[in-house]
Amino acid sequence: MPEFFNVVTPSEAWRILDAHIKPLMGMERIKSGEAVGRITAETIYSLENLPAFPRATMDGYAVRAKDTYGASEGLPAYLRVVGEIEMGHPAMVIIRPAEAARVHTGGMLPQGADAVVMVENTQSVDVSTIEVVRPVALGENVLRIGEDTKVGEVLFEAGHLLRPQDIGGLMALGLTGINVFLRPRVSIISTGDEIVSPERVPMPGQVRDINTYTTTALTQQAGAIALTQSIVPDDYAQLKEAAFSALGRAEILVISAGSSVSTRDMTATVIESLGKPGILVHGVSLRPGKPTILAVVNERPVFGLPGNPVSSMVAFDLFVKPAIYKVAGCKAPPPSPKVVARLTHNLPSTTGREDYVPVKLERRGDGLWATAVFGESNLITLLIRSDGLAKVPLDKHGLTEGESVSVGLF
Amino acid sequence: MPEFFNVVTPSEAWRILDAHIKPLMGMERIKSGEAVGRITAETIYSLENLPAFPRATMDGYAVRAKDTYGASEGLPAYLRVVGEIEMGHPAMVIIRPAEAARVHTGGMLPQGADAVVMVENTQSVDVSTIEVVRPVALGENVLRIGEDTKVGEVLFEAGHLLRPQDIGGLMALGLTGINVFLRPRVSIISTGDEIVSPERVPMPGQVRDINTYTTTALTQQAGAIALTQSIVPDDYAQLKEAAFSALGRAEILVISAGSSVSTRDMTATVIESLGKPGILVHGVSLRPGKPTILAVVNERPVFGLPGNPVSSMVAFDLFVKPAIYKVAGCKAPPPSPKVVARLTHNLPSTTGREDYVPVKLERRGDGLWATAVFGESNLITLLIRSDGLAKVPLDKHGLTEGESVSVGLF
Repeated sequence: MPEFFNVVTPSEAWRILDAHIKPLMGMERIKSGEAVGRITAETIYSLENLPAFPRATMDGYAVRAKDTYGASEGLPAYLRVVGEIEMGHPAMVIIRPAEAARVHTGGMLPQGADAVVMVENTQSVDVSTIEVVRPVALGENVLRIGEDTKVGEVLFEAGHLLRPQDIGGLMALGLTGINVFLRPRVSIISTGDEIVSPERVPMPGQVRDINTYTTTALTQQAGAIALTQSIVPDDYAQLKEAAFSALGRAEILVISAGSSVSTRDMTATVIESLGKPGILVHGVSLRPGKPTILAVVNERPVFGLPGNPVSSMVAFDLFVKPAIYKVAGCKAPPPSPKVVARLTHNLPSTTGREDYVPVKLERRGDGLWATAVFGESNLITLLIRSDGLAKVPLDKHGLTEGESVSVGLF
Repeated sequence: MPEFFNVVTPSEAWRILDAHIKPLMGMERIKSGEAVGRITAETIYSLENLPAFPRATMDGYAVRAKDTYGASEGLPAYLRVVGEIEMGHPAMVIIRPAEAARVHTGGMLPQGADAVVMVENTQSVDVSTIEVVRPVALGENVLRIGEDTKVGEVLFEAGHLLRPQDIGGLMALGLTGINVFLRPRVSIISTGDEIVSPERVPMPGQVRDINTYTTTALTQQAGAIALTQSIVPDDYAQLKEAAFSALGRAEILVISAGSSVSTRDMTATVIESLGKPGILVHGVSLRPGKPTILAVVNERPVFGLPGNPVSSMVAFDLFVKPAIYKVAGCKAPPPSPKVVARLTHNLPSTTGREDYVPVKLERRGDGLWATAVFGESNLITLLIRSDGLAKVPLDKHGLTEGESVSVGLF
């Protein structure tokens, strides 16, 4: 089968793939303290009111608000101090008219009190009397029961990626265990008769494997488990067997194709042979990354990534990463970090193609500037010397010096 | 010692701390495949040329460029095909005048050849003859020896945070092991008589620990090791002993203070007692996060973070995170992800204070919009319901509806 290019735009390519894939993962119960970066597998409800008791939000005196109405520097309200609320203990006093109790931030409001006067708005008259020089409103400086969250309130929907503060929220409510989706497994295969393991000294004509390692690292950054294996030669039977067995062990398969057209053709033929619906997109209006293959086999996403490292990273970011999040059950994947910079030079491109250009960023007095790191797109050091990839949109015939460009950081 | 506030701006506060801290970590040798997110402990040089042999960057024919000069559709150059370069093997043929060899992308250029004609610019005449219909320049479609990187070239300076593509570059050069800095250890202490472990059911007046868990997760996200311990009550002797022993086990100490002024005062006194130079900053013109303490004890950064979860996260992001990267030896920490959004409403503030307001983001037809999630700053659910923190700069007297605001994502 010769290489065919029914080239579609990157967003159309993703739309096609997206329509064919869905969350695939079962759930497991883990400790909430170890759940950062994991995805909730069910709706999480609050089982308690938070706070469970009315709390002071300021240091001062718990009072009945109406006892302070009209208080001023000239005509202060005099209150009798009947006690101090100890932190971490229930408030043991009861506040009656014209009474107050010393309370600290976070302390429990005693019965009878309905507001807290800030200590700054009081003066000590004697050991058991204070002057209040400003009125407080009902509920002022008090956190009501359930003001943070109430019993039965939804804390997280299913499909929520847990962040540090979310772990804090779970702990605050005593939810020390949580059901999350299992992490997707991504099988990674590198093909190419010229590719050898990095441990080996390459003979003339051979090069060391790069893509297995960058793809593994990118997979882990996306929260999935990378399953790697030894390099597969450009042999149809061997590649087919390797792909078939790799797909049996994982929810997602990434084949890093060799760099020549014939190898890419073979990769396409192998992917097509694995099952239905097979190849959905072969060729994307993208540079670098044009010969990317997007496929689905028995509901599992299968990717044929171009052999050169830059193309491979661009295609991973645009297609494999969002597919990992979708399979993982994540409803709102975290946005990739981006900055806007101005170009130090013209950046030629072609209308109808999305270009990604490795750039170096530089902060000058008047903002951030981007300079392309030029070189053949198959240079790994191109990516090492870059801070990110500048995007030349599909509808642009290049960008001019001084023009703003969106740079995806890596 | 009463709480004192010599309030400085956030950038001034960081400048003061920054001047007192330095990289503290020793090195360890690890596998390059496991080095993503780690920091190089020494300059890494290339020990090989990459590529080690001239490689074709296109599928086509290896030729002598001069044999194609003047070639056109009307007057093609006729070349004799003397062989095919097998992928992964040394080129065994020698190209003599008017000769060519079939070569695939990534294949080795044979001796005598100095350019590659793309297959699209050739036509087969018979089994051993091709027509070349366009000239190629010397070196065209060829990657020269060392064009990617040369022996002795610096691949990474010391202090470089390793990214996925950097691992690829190390592998390409056979550098399968690498010396990196050890990860900093951050001891985390939560104080407060009212704080209990999340496993426990709080009595009236008690609340569960939140900050140990959010701080632990943030610490791990910054590439450090979090060392936690049981909650310390508001007792000077106990807190001092806990802080002293925690600092002995780690390069950085974070004390999450209780919420009341008296507890914060005690935290400050304890930090001051640990050693020199002690507290550098006590009070930052920041909301929330004003009562943040920045200190250094025997070259180790020590932080007193406010007890409320929002303040604590803001202070961590502004001060603890950059301190972790500096202690870790990282010269260029990764930028925190930020987006620019427009405000759906006015956002009041005070000149001379940097405000961070939890916001919810919404993508509309005309771009990204931010809406503040209002509530007391001590609500943990405020952070759960937010997508990020909008920053109201120091010199702004609030922001108005429709105005652009920078939102740090979390």
